[in-house]
Amino acid sequence: MDAAKILGLVAGFLTTVAFVPQVVKTWRSKSARDLSLVMFLLFCTGIFLWMIYGFMINELPVILWNIITLVLALIILFFKLRFKD
Amino acid sequence: MDAAKILGLVAGFLTTVAFVPQVVKTWRSKSARDLSLVMFLLFCTGIFLWMIYGFMINELPVILWNIITLVLALIILFFKLRFKD
Repeated sequence: MDAAKILGLVAGFLTTVAFVPQVVKTWRSKSARDLSLVMFLLFCTGIFLWMIYGFMINELPVILWNIITLVLALIILFFKLRFKD
Repeated sequence: MDAAKILGLVAGFLTTVAFVPQVVKTWRSKSARDLSLVMFLLFCTGIFLWMIYGFMINELPVILWNIITLVLALIILFFKLRFKD
């Protein structure tokens, strides 16, 4: 595995696990008032396309981490819709 | 420009502009209580590494959009630190 792939995996690890504390915080507080609904709608759509892009250029880091990020972002989107302002 | 690059640009456009409504919302409400500080610290670090990764694999979409996303995410991080809970 070359240096770029390793860096891509580390970068993807960080931008993916970043959403875990947000999921935990929102779950605990049951408050999502300050989160932008439009942000998470656009973000989930974009991450889905990044995943497709990853398949097209055959780059493992792009594919792998975007799948996990999509799941976490969808959870936050669900919380935003569930926990009314 | 091939199909993958176009898709990458569209994907990057969406995951980047996604942060704009969050910046606007947080600026207007002056409230960032529900945003996770840890999320934005990890996210900004990860996006910085994605940018470096983009340079290493020479993929324009990865480079371009991560630079802009980094700026927007840093603004939200600044708001989170400025607007005390």
